[in-house]
Amino acid sequence: MSTSDVMVGLHQKALNLLQEDADNIEKLIQIQMETLTNRRCPLYEEVLDTQMYGLSREIDFAIRAGLIDEASGKLIISDLERKLAQLYEALALSRKE
Amino acid sequence: MSTSDVMVGLHQKALNLLQEDADNIEKLIQIQMETLTNRRCPLYEEVLDTQMYGLSREIDFAIRAGLIDEASGKLIISDLERKLAQLYEALALSRKE
Repeated sequence: MSTSDVMVGLHQKALNLLQEDADNIEKLIQIQMETLTNRRCPLYEEVLDTQMYGLSREIDFAIRAGLIDEASGKLIISDLERKLAQLYEALALSRKE
Repeated sequence: MSTSDVMVGLHQKALNLLQEDADNIEKLIQIQMETLTNRRCPLYEEVLDTQMYGLSREIDFAIRAGLIDEASGKLIISDLERKLAQLYEALALSRKE
């Protein structure tokens, strides 16, 4: 394997790992979305916030280590933030009802 | 540069970055140690906890990405945990006085 092969492999591995963590957060969002009308767990927002912070630290580290570029990292976060915003909007709506 | 040179470089870079973050947490611990007798900021423990969690996520990611070995990662965390324990002990003592 050439040096650039190794780097491409590492970039890909880093992106896969980060996406895996992002997918886990998305699953948490999905679960909360589905149970919206049944009952709400007040700790959910806290857990999601903590998970988002953890992921942002991982992504920041991967960027600094040169494993991924800044744009890819920001995309993972902004995608999740959009989904979180949808959840909070749905939560706010269900509280009004 | 050979493939193994690139990997050694990446390992070193990853370790340096993690140690940098650990040093920043240690500085926070030091500051709180020094102001122990003056005044205490109740948010300090919260901030330190959050920072420790962030660093542990970075280290976990670096291990999974194959950038550092598990032992090196655990060493950074256990070193900080020891210092944190000293701080909390000193805080507990100063509260008793």
